[in-house]
Amino acid sequence: MDFLELARKRYSVRSYRADPVEREKLERILEAARLAPTAVNIQPFHLLVIPTTGREAELLRIYNKKWFVQPPVVICACGIPGKSWVRKDGKNYNDVDVAIVMDHLILAATAEGLGTCWIGAFDLGAAKEVLNLAVGVEPIAFTPVGYPADRPPEKKRKPLSELVRYVSW
Amino acid sequence: MDFLELARKRYSVRSYRADPVEREKLERILEAARLAPTAVNIQPFHLLVIPTTGREAELLRIYNKKWFVQPPVVICACGIPGKSWVRKDGKNYNDVDVAIVMDHLILAATAEGLGTCWIGAFDLGAAKEVLNLAVGVEPIAFTPVGYPADRPPEKKRKPLSELVRYVSW
Repeated sequence: MDFLELARKRYSVRSYRADPVEREKLERILEAARLAPTAVNIQPFHLLVIPTTGREAELLRIYNKKWFVQPPVVICACGIPGKSWVRKDGKNYNDVDVAIVMDHLILAATAEGLGTCWIGAFDLGAAKEVLNLAVGVEPIAFTPVGYPADRPPEKKRKPLSELVRYVSW
Repeated sequence: MDFLELARKRYSVRSYRADPVEREKLERILEAARLAPTAVNIQPFHLLVIPTTGREAELLRIYNKKWFVQPPVVICACGIPGKSWVRKDGKNYNDVDVAIVMDHLILAATAEGLGTCWIGAFDLGAAKEVLNLAVGVEPIAFTPVGYPADRPPEKKRKPLSELVRYVSW
């Protein structure tokens, strides 16, 4: 598949079927995440693969939308900012690293025909508690992983003229 | 191309040919970036397309490696953190947004046969000054964009067993 076609195909899926996700597909999307680049190749992240069945109530404390727990699996991308690369002016690249990893995972899932949705609007305290995260491990984004039960909406984006500046010297 | 194959093909290119980058390819990689998701679809980013020819000395103040200015174009992904989405606990998602945009762009470039390299280790002050960035616009990552003159090194990554935790309840 053409990459632009893949980028067009990805959308925020907000309704999922309960159908299982094939183990091979899950392994391929995790492998895509593993291949993602991180600053100075430190790889300061953890991916949590969370089965939803029977734990819906706890997971809804993290993000309270019914579609969050419709698919069989939710993935949480966590950073370890205390281990990540820091530029000499103090800028920590952990969020960038984790976002690259999750972007790889989400695009790989799209290529497998799976639906996902970037979720940043979760309850941080509930996430740390429910998932029993170690001190220093910071959840950055969640996504459900499953088969879509909705249809892609029209993608609304600013025109390139608003987003891109061609530098002329 | 299979997405996993694409993720394997991308590497940090540290030697470039001076050959021009076709306008259509540049437009396709910018379009892929435009399609990237951002928190609450705010799209709080700018992409700067920077021609290198004749401005090598100024660009080397930003990042002092000769291969940075070998290709005809460098792209800088900037965030506008004052406009980006902030979670109720205060977490700002600008770095995540910009990283998703740049990851889309870099993977799209790879699909076009172009080389790139994520660069975070630039001089922040020099970048703002040389590129005359407005107050509130923060450069997050640069990449050269051009045809590779080197060969991919072996990709070194931690095993999945160190990066992934299967949550069992």
